[in-house]
Amino acid sequence: MSEAVKTLDGWYCLHDFRAMDWTTWKMISPEERQAAIHEFLGLIEKWNRTQDDKKGSHALYTVVGQKADFMMMILRPTMEELNEIETEFNKTKLAEFTVPTHSYVSVVELGNYLPSDQDPYQNPEILARLYPTLPKAKYICFYPMDKRRQGEDNWYMLPMEERRSLMRSHGMIGRSYAGQVKQIITGSVGFDDYEWGVTLFSDDVLQFKKLVYEMRFDEVSARYGEFGSFFVGNILEVDRIESFLHVN
Amino acid sequence: MSEAVKTLDGWYCLHDFRAMDWTTWKMISPEERQAAIHEFLGLIEKWNRTQDDKKGSHALYTVVGQKADFMMMILRPTMEELNEIETEFNKTKLAEFTVPTHSYVSVVELGNYLPSDQDPYQNPEILARLYPTLPKAKYICFYPMDKRRQGEDNWYMLPMEERRSLMRSHGMIGRSYAGQVKQIITGSVGFDDYEWGVTLFSDDVLQFKKLVYEMRFDEVSARYGEFGSFFVGNILEVDRIESFLHVN
Amino acid sequence: MSEAVKTLDGWYCLHDFRAMDWTTWKMISPEERQAAIHEFLGLIEKWNRTQDDKKGSHALYTVVGQKADFMMMILRPTMEELNEIETEFNKTKLAEFTVPTHSYVSVVELGNYLPSDQDPYQNPEILARLYPTLPKAKYICFYPMDKRRQGEDNWYMLPMEERRSLMRSHGMIGRSYAGQVKQIITGSVGFDDYEWGVTLFSDDVLQFKKLVYEMRFDEVSARYGEFGSFFVGNILEVDRIESFLHVN
Amino acid sequence: MSEAVKTLDGWYCLHDFRAMDWTTWKMISPEERQAAIHEFLGLIEKWNRTQDDKKGSHALYTVVGQKADFMMMILRPTMEELNEIETEFNKTKLAEFTVPTHSYVSVVELGNYLPSDQDPYQNPEILARLYPTLPKAKYICFYPMDKRRQGEDNWYMLPMEERRSLMRSHGMIGRSYAGQVKQIITGSVGFDDYEWGVTLFSDDVLQFKKLVYEMRFDEVSARYGEFGSFFVGNILEVDRIESFLHVN
Amino acid sequence: MSEAVKTLDGWYCLHDFRAMDWTTWKMISPEERQAAIHEFLGLIEKWNRTQDDKKGSHALYTVVGQKADFMMMILRPTMEELNEIETEFNKTKLAEFTVPTHSYVSVVELGNYLPSDQDPYQNPEILARLYPTLPKAKYICFYPMDKRRQGEDNWYMLPMEERRSLMRSHGMIGRSYAGQVKQIITGSVGFDDYEWGVTLFSDDVLQFKKLVYEMRFDEVSARYGEFGSFFVGNILEVDRIESFLHVN
Repeated sequence: MSEAVKTLDGWYCLHDFRAMDWTTWKMISPEERQAAIHEFLGLIEKWNRTQDDKKGSHALYTVVGQKADFMMMILRPTMEELNEIETEFNKTKLAEFTVPTHSYVSVVELGNYLPSDQDPYQNPEILARLYPTLPKAKYICFYPMDKRRQGEDNWYMLPMEERRSLMRSHGMIGRSYAGQVKQIITGSVGFDDYEWGVTLFSDDVLQFKKLVYEMRFDEVSARYGEFGSFFVGNILEVDRIESFLHVN
Repeated sequence: MSEAVKTLDGWYCLHDFRAMDWTTWKMISPEERQAAIHEFLGLIEKWNRTQDDKKGSHALYTVVGQKADFMMMILRPTMEELNEIETEFNKTKLAEFTVPTHSYVSVVELGNYLPSDQDPYQNPEILARLYPTLPKAKYICFYPMDKRRQGEDNWYMLPMEERRSLMRSHGMIGRSYAGQVKQIITGSVGFDDYEWGVTLFSDDVLQFKKLVYEMRFDEVSARYGEFGSFFVGNILEVDRIESFLHVN
Repeated sequence: MSEAVKTLDGWYCLHDFRAMDWTTWKMISPEERQAAIHEFLGLIEKWNRTQDDKKGSHALYTVVGQKADFMMMILRPTMEELNEIETEFNKTKLAEFTVPTHSYVSVVELGNYLPSDQDPYQNPEILARLYPTLPKAKYICFYPMDKRRQGEDNWYMLPMEERRSLMRSHGMIGRSYAGQVKQIITGSVGFDDYEWGVTLFSDDVLQFKKLVYEMRFDEVSARYGEFGSFFVGNILEVDRIESFLHVN
Repeated sequence: MSEAVKTLDGWYCLHDFRAMDWTTWKMISPEERQAAIHEFLGLIEKWNRTQDDKKGSHALYTVVGQKADFMMMILRPTMEELNEIETEFNKTKLAEFTVPTHSYVSVVELGNYLPSDQDPYQNPEILARLYPTLPKAKYICFYPMDKRRQGEDNWYMLPMEERRSLMRSHGMIGRSYAGQVKQIITGSVGFDDYEWGVTLFSDDVLQFKKLVYEMRFDEVSARYGEFGSFFVGNILEVDRIESFLHVN
Repeated sequence: MSEAVKTLDGWYCLHDFRAMDWTTWKMISPEERQAAIHEFLGLIEKWNRTQDDKKGSHALYTVVGQKADFMMMILRPTMEELNEIETEFNKTKLAEFTVPTHSYVSVVELGNYLPSDQDPYQNPEILARLYPTLPKAKYICFYPMDKRRQGEDNWYMLPMEERRSLMRSHGMIGRSYAGQVKQIITGSVGFDDYEWGVTLFSDDVLQFKKLVYEMRFDEVSARYGEFGSFFVGNILEVDRIESFLHVN
């Protein structure tokens, strides 16, 4: 048996994608819509306070194409909190006009392919990555992925040393985009249908394509990567929510 | 032909996942909602009595993400009882506001990779595992799985001795989580789309990820495991049902 | 080119799976429900007369899990009759409260891996298998399947003699369950998405699991079997229909 | 690079499968239903005139099982005409009570695996096959298919001569069913999700199964065929439409 | 690791496919329909002005078969503009009567398999291809595709030189259709589920089939191409919109 990498795990994470039902949204009165928006903004305010208290973080983006109209990414210390936030949103007025189109449950994860003589949980840099405040980047990209187990291309049958070395060179590509793309890896083995979720943030949407494409030529992706659906979105700042939801 | 392992089979099992239709749920009066909740609690009371009588068991969990809002796991001595419980629930008022999102039909199973000089049905420990009272753990994880039959990686073409040996070391990993994760394997060959269902219970949700991930490096999973969707949830204690279903 | 086995073909077969829309079913008056049930019972009475006349057969089972609430299996001498029965059911009042969830079109088939010096259509035992009256067994199991054509595991590239020999040992397993499981094989090449439908009947539901599992270790299944969805159900006797459909 | 076979292409083809929404169909008045049927018959009359003028052809069949209630197969000289017919049908009263369940866009195609010293478009027999009047056979069978490109079984990497020889023996099987099964091949590369559509017509529905099954043992299908969904139906003669659509 | 090809990227692109809900569309008054059409034409007028200003481009086609009734292809300099256009359309009256059936998010891409001693962004021909005004061709064909990574057929493990040479001969086929088929390649790695979108324009719809079929015998497609759904459509000129949407 190959040795499993020890992972470091941080906040739990819910990606929640929603389509708007614009037709029924237009059917209610402007006052009702205003009340629904107000209620939603109240929720976000509460999330902002949690974020200010370093007890979690969140991000809102509108999504391009028909996969969703907007998405919420929520980080919290426990699964219970994710479940509560989701249920609280589902009970709002606004939620009556949304259709759930996709979700993903995971936990912020750092693959610990590092020397073992350090306690990673004492390392401030690592703590900042396990409990991150999500950046206010202009664009988001999300996709889930697996490591392949197929015939000759079976990641989980490789010896630890080979995996470590492959991941190292894979990580190099990521690092060459530092400053341009912020990457948050969340582990979802046992929680959702793929093994990892990858969330990328950037102020230049083209960097997502360049990064993912360059990585695809790396053996880790080329031979061992299995990818799910890709979602791309534009930041939905709080002060743009009202106009985004405005209808005549 | 490879020899099939003789299995020990206990209670039949239904996993039943439901989404809430919060929009229509909010449309009825508080009195009607109260009556629906009351009726549902009555059902659970009946299930509790069955459980107290050791004639079955059940568990209720809210589910994180859009795959469902809650799930019911029901164990009973016969398929007829599972069918009756399901139909009885479907006829309740509450069920009118739920959408079935997934289900799984199986039977508690112990792979009998053991010496043959014992009658397992005389063994109290084995009986306790075949007819288990489900634990009140904080978290649940469910996923179905197959043993792979693909090119060189064909579990069902392996000789019994090799399967036995592979399963033994696989079981070791499971056992190293004893005390932290309780695992119930249910067989579903002939009953549902995968060959087994795996239900894990723990008070530490991260242990699901650690266990499943560690196992993935074991040859049994790495080469021979095919996994379906993963569901993760938080326990829904009876006294939390009312607040879970509360809307304004 | 490998030689195709000559098949013997009997009655055409429709498996028709339906979910109940309990919510709308409860909305109509008890009198309307009574009328709908009465109309459905009339249909079954007609099917019973056809069965008594040996001009077809049928079976009704409730289905465990969310795949359906009940299923009808109908055998008739022609495709036209299947189509008429289906359309007649679809036009009933009861059908307004059902949702079609799955169906399968096939024809009773005997693989003629037998000596060629006999006219099988003169053989009463074979005729009884081609035009069977479905048993009143407590349980039903249905699944469709293909013979695999994948890389080295290509059933259709095997020489006839090898297929014949493999099927012979495969048939042995089936025969060892004789008396416990009645098996009806229907061919669906050219009629539906898989090549065969397998319908099993038994008074002990666990025998389905044992039979299918034991067969999976046989090379025919292990290397060459591709399986679709599995459905399992409890017999719905005519005198249980009313209580099954009873709602308050 | 392997050389592509030159194809001969005739009329464009739309297979359009529809389920009836019998519940809402029953809700309107008999007069409205009569008007809807009348309008639909008018459409068919128009299609009949086109067919009489040899400017196209069409066929109507009811479909067995839940995949559809009926299907229309339409042949026309241009894609625009197919699009117009489809839109015209969609705007009818009857269409309000149908649910689109499947469609297929293709063009009648003859694989030109023939000597090159003839101008096929001068050949009356070939013209009759490119611009066919669909037969009034009792049964129809439709399925889409691809030629496989998978590991060692890659049709498109075979040299032309080998493909030609394989297709020749494959065609032999088809020809042995001449008189019993009429086969129309339509190409859909660039038009729909598979590479070809196969439409079979026969007065003996069992011949579909025999033909497709026999072909499956031929190397072209055994190693290189990938099949989509199969649909089977009974002819819906114009004078049966009214009774097919009749409800109380 | 294989070296990634540097790509040139132009305008962002949204393919947006819609089905009409003709039933509800017929329910509103002719005046309301007229107003909805008028509003939609206003949107197109705005898009036309953007196109005249060379700040984007767009195309409208009706789609053959049930995959959609019409599609909009939109090119813009930023993801934000695509998102705004999509949301603006979704808020129109007409959109209330459409059902989103498919979408694709990508960016115009030129694979830079060219000598490196030139600055491609100074090349007017290349600029015209990165920021194209979509042609008014009679027909459109759209499909997404991946380069395969499967066992021995792994595009991303090939050395750059081999990929370059394979693409060169692949490009030859494309070029032999110059004048007949205009091809726009859009990259979608990191943006949508496939790696590329291919949009073809022609005045002869059969050329789509000929081109895609001929390419399929080329090693790049035969061994390394994975294709998604194909969509084919007829141009929807502005002055045909009213009659397309006309109902009685």
